[in-house]
Amino acid sequence: MQIVKSLAWMQRLARALPRPVVLVPTMGALHEGHLALVDRANELAGRKGSTVATIFVNPTQFGPREDYRKYPRPFSRDCLRLRKKSCDLVFAPMPADMYSPDASVVVTESQLATAMCGVSRPGHFVGVCTVVTKLFHLIQPDIAIFGEKDFQQLAILRRMVRDLNFPVRIVGHPIVREPDGLALSSRNVYLSAEERQQAPLIHQTLRDAEKSVRAQSVSRRTLENRIRRRIEQGSLAKIDYVTVVDPETLRPKEPNQLPVLLAAAVFFGGTRLIDNILVK
Amino acid sequence: MQIVKSLAWMQRLARALPRPVVLVPTMGALHEGHLALVDRANELAGRKGSTVATIFVNPTQFGPREDYRKYPRPFSRDCLRLRKKSCDLVFAPMPADMYSPDASVVVTESQLATAMCGVSRPGHFVGVCTVVTKLFHLIQPDIAIFGEKDFQQLAILRRMVRDLNFPVRIVGHPIVREPDGLALSSRNVYLSAEERQQAPLIHQTLRDAEKSVRAQSVSRRTLENRIRRRIEQGSLAKIDYVTVVDPETLRPKEPNQLPVLLAAAVFFGGTRLIDNILVK
Repeated sequence: MQIVKSLAWMQRLARALPRPVVLVPTMGALHEGHLALVDRANELAGRKGSTVATIFVNPTQFGPREDYRKYPRPFSRDCLRLRKKSCDLVFAPMPADMYSPDASVVVTESQLATAMCGVSRPGHFVGVCTVVTKLFHLIQPDIAIFGEKDFQQLAILRRMVRDLNFPVRIVGHPIVREPDGLALSSRNVYLSAEERQQAPLIHQTLRDAEKSVRAQSVSRRTLENRIRRRIEQGSLAKIDYVTVVDPETLRPKEPNQLPVLLAAAVFFGGTRLIDNILVK
Repeated sequence: MQIVKSLAWMQRLARALPRPVVLVPTMGALHEGHLALVDRANELAGRKGSTVATIFVNPTQFGPREDYRKYPRPFSRDCLRLRKKSCDLVFAPMPADMYSPDASVVVTESQLATAMCGVSRPGHFVGVCTVVTKLFHLIQPDIAIFGEKDFQQLAILRRMVRDLNFPVRIVGHPIVREPDGLALSSRNVYLSAEERQQAPLIHQTLRDAEKSVRAQSVSRRTLENRIRRRIEQGSLAKIDYVTVVDPETLRPKEPNQLPVLLAAAVFFGGTRLIDNILVK
């Protein structure tokens, strides 16, 4: 497994990588969710193709009060895990190489990015779209895989690929969960024992909400309030948003017509967790 | 010479084009300036490579009161001219295929685009950056050639390639002029006989300004005013801007240190002409 840090070298190598090239962009601190993406990448690459993972904690997608500095960076362990998964190449650039001090060009999405996480994390999706554009240009993948936990990110990147005609196919991968239902996230390590105990409440609540969507006619407002009240029963939970939306437009949608996405973002102390269920 | 209108087909063909692929993006209404770019493209492509021209009057780079509708579209004649120049492929998509009604992703440059033409044409460079990104993804060129008449566009696209790590080399090409000095432009056909007679005043004035930059210490303010006053002697000329800037940052710069760019935008009736001289 090759580990590449130089941008110029990555771009040069990209031309010679056996195709299809399947990309798994990550911020490192890899968990089983990421490794499932790598498994899927290996499948899609087949015997002939290449699986490339990136490890880059992208400063531009963090807000000024967010956890950029303390975000976990267990680089050697990440590389060992990727090697075990027979990943072909890891691209791990330095932030100073990725962004010139006078960088002035960004990629922005203006519809899907205004909802959900876009409200509480202004600028986040500009950072995401811009860094993914850069990674696509540096690695030139045929396929790129993203987890469905970041459902909004996935929707925005699909839109970006469509609107900017990237020669890349975006593949979503189902959320990987702990046995108690908590969605895997690199940020779960921030949780105290007590927070960790309450955190599965998010998924449990969304799952029950899914049942009531399927079982009965319930209005969006009622459903959102019900989810909110139940999650707030966790004494340490502080809701950022709970929303029922159309999975394509991410606009609020009555749940009497499927598909709908049930999504929530919840703080436990300083840790912001997101989760969702697509009811289709 | 192949003429391609389908986006999907263009993207598919792109993979098989003999490299290097050299791109000349145009809005059609080709003049000798464009054809000089095609000559240069042929040189850079060499015997093995491919020259691709695009003909696309991009709606998103025109302001609401600008000339999108009346912009000349002599498509057959353009194709004949490109064929004569042994261009290998012409990509001429339809606007409705290029832009979804709910398109929401754009590429923006926020420093260089705030000066010069960016002031009088808000949104213009967002349109330019976005369409060039799309064309780059559809055609995947190794090199792209742009004329230096649109100096600001060239500077912004170089910045875009740098900041988004496009695997494309941008090549600028010197301005091609009429014998009387008027820079070739598809918009020159809009000029009345009298306007056409006065239009070379822009270049003549900039050339004299270049002489005084080289000859003597003259302040930016004095120089700009001198250029402005002289161009205003053309009874039909209405100045949009006259500016002396650093060719890298496009910020105002005293002309006692080279290089400087002398640039002007001037209306003759409803026709807006731009021109510049780089003093280095």
